[in-house]
Amino acid sequence: MAGLPAEFGLIARHFLPLAGPSALGLADDAALLDPPAGRQLVLAADAMVAGVHFLPEDPPETVGRKLLRVNLSDLAAMGAAPLAYLMTTALPRDLPPLWLEGFVAGLAEDQVRFGLQVLGGDTVSIPGPITLSLTILGTVAPGGALRRSGARPGDGIWVSGTIGDGALGLRVLQGRLPADAEGHLARRYRLPDPRLALGAALSGLAHAAMDVSDGLVQDLGHLCRAGGLGAVLRADAVPLSPAARALVMADPALLPVVLSGGDDYELLFAAPPGAAVEARAAATGTAVARIGQFVEGPAEVLVQGPDGAPLALPAGGWSHF
Amino acid sequence: MAGLPAEFGLIARHFLPLAGPSALGLADDAALLDPPAGRQLVLAADAMVAGVHFLPEDPPETVGRKLLRVNLSDLAAMGAAPLAYLMTTALPRDLPPLWLEGFVAGLAEDQVRFGLQVLGGDTVSIPGPITLSLTILGTVAPGGALRRSGARPGDGIWVSGTIGDGALGLRVLQGRLPADAEGHLARRYRLPDPRLALGAALSGLAHAAMDVSDGLVQDLGHLCRAGGLGAVLRADAVPLSPAARALVMADPALLPVVLSGGDDYELLFAAPPGAAVEARAAATGTAVARIGQFVEGPAEVLVQGPDGAPLALPAGGWSHF
Repeated sequence: MAGLPAEFGLIARHFLPLAGPSALGLADDAALLDPPAGRQLVLAADAMVAGVHFLPEDPPETVGRKLLRVNLSDLAAMGAAPLAYLMTTALPRDLPPLWLEGFVAGLAEDQVRFGLQVLGGDTVSIPGPITLSLTILGTVAPGGALRRSGARPGDGIWVSGTIGDGALGLRVLQGRLPADAEGHLARRYRLPDPRLALGAALSGLAHAAMDVSDGLVQDLGHLCRAGGLGAVLRADAVPLSPAARALVMADPALLPVVLSGGDDYELLFAAPPGAAVEARAAATGTAVARIGQFVEGPAEVLVQGPDGAPLALPAGGWSHF
Repeated sequence: MAGLPAEFGLIARHFLPLAGPSALGLADDAALLDPPAGRQLVLAADAMVAGVHFLPEDPPETVGRKLLRVNLSDLAAMGAAPLAYLMTTALPRDLPPLWLEGFVAGLAEDQVRFGLQVLGGDTVSIPGPITLSLTILGTVAPGGALRRSGARPGDGIWVSGTIGDGALGLRVLQGRLPADAEGHLARRYRLPDPRLALGAALSGLAHAAMDVSDGLVQDLGHLCRAGGLGAVLRADAVPLSPAARALVMADPALLPVVLSGGDDYELLFAAPPGAAVEARAAATGTAVARIGQFVEGPAEVLVQGPDGAPLALPAGGWSHF
């Protein structure tokens, strides 16, 4: 019997420290998990490709965390609590070992932060770019999941945090926009902040919710189609970070990038008038802003510009194909 | 609001027909699943890259099915029953639409065959080879899962089906070996047969089990390390298909390819002397063969050649790195 192939050493060295007891030491054919009693499972999967979803020169520490966090953002949008994940990595053979060390170190940090364990996965070689896939499992009280459908005419349109930082941060990292002094925009592109506490707090209050990944306007369109109603979005009510605001003030042509650029990973949700949205959000330490209203009518998003007139946006959102 | 990006049409057209009710129409942020009462969850994930795990010219119908079946083989190795899956696909932008149609048609066929539904996933573009990742969920009675550890000295080493077809089939498809008249070897490479019924039947009988994916000898080494014991494998007891036997008879140098080539997806398991292995296997319609014995000693595999003398094998198994 010859020595074990290198991938076993790689898994034992890098991924085993991430594994919880259900992973069976990453040494069996599958993981064994007792589902938490009295909870529904919430499951999502996202893939990331170097050069498409992150920059090849991004620090590996943030790549692993971004992969985890975009999936956690899906759980947040359902009001779910994180449980565990599985991950497959397709890595070029000439990947520097330090890259993988950083990637795993980032994951380890965020596992602690979000109370997660890895259950299993696969590590393979690829004659192409680093390609990552992560399946996340969460849980929610039966019937308590937030859904995309359910918004009603008259509901307020709410969003968490600030919008546009990720899309602007990508352009900063690409050298197409000047960086802010604190590096806020680049950091937001590389490290989204999944709004898990807010999502959980909105269960039973919000009529509908999703996370903003493809662009605010496009994703609002999804809520409209799911609910069979329209939306009026007030562009000047959309919360911007100081860094984003400075860029848009200097060049108003960046407003469409903010509104439909994507990579925000904030929560977008519908809540009835009078609902205690701000109190619940404040209890979780999350900023929220009311940015418009759902209306009867066809499933369309009307964006009101700062002057009150309809704002024409280029074709909304990022598409892979 | 402009039209939806093409990926939404792609998902609705190709993947939505595969979705079950828990997938929420593939239109929400995540799937919602009620875990089956009184069962443990079994979870595994595998990735496949064109040119590494399948041939770029393989029929797309078999690519989807192979992806599903290598994951199902992990469930079989745990004695688990299939429940559902999530899948991410990273596809080149110039992929012919017919490829995706075939890929999905194959998945649809096998979903019916194995009683599965898709829960969700992600479809992204890649400036590289087709890269697929699938996470499978199964269930098993609490405590009933087959594990890799647990083999005892004196246990028989058993294997299902025939060994070596996949590794030889790859070489046939690469033009390095002559094809058999029925196309058996190529078919076995492209379409493994997950031994789910046998796995379930072995629960409570086998002391240890795994599926053979990296090569019989290497995978037997995993059972030895997990159990802290050695193994004596009789090469002439390893079951071969008529097509594989014909090739090895013509060129005995192919025996190492059979024994450590991988891509078998048969079950390899330990059972105590006198256990009703053959009766249980026969009840599931699965051929099994006893190919050696576990022994006390260091975690090493001794392969006895057809003449009874130890057979030296090249470094065992496939490695990605």
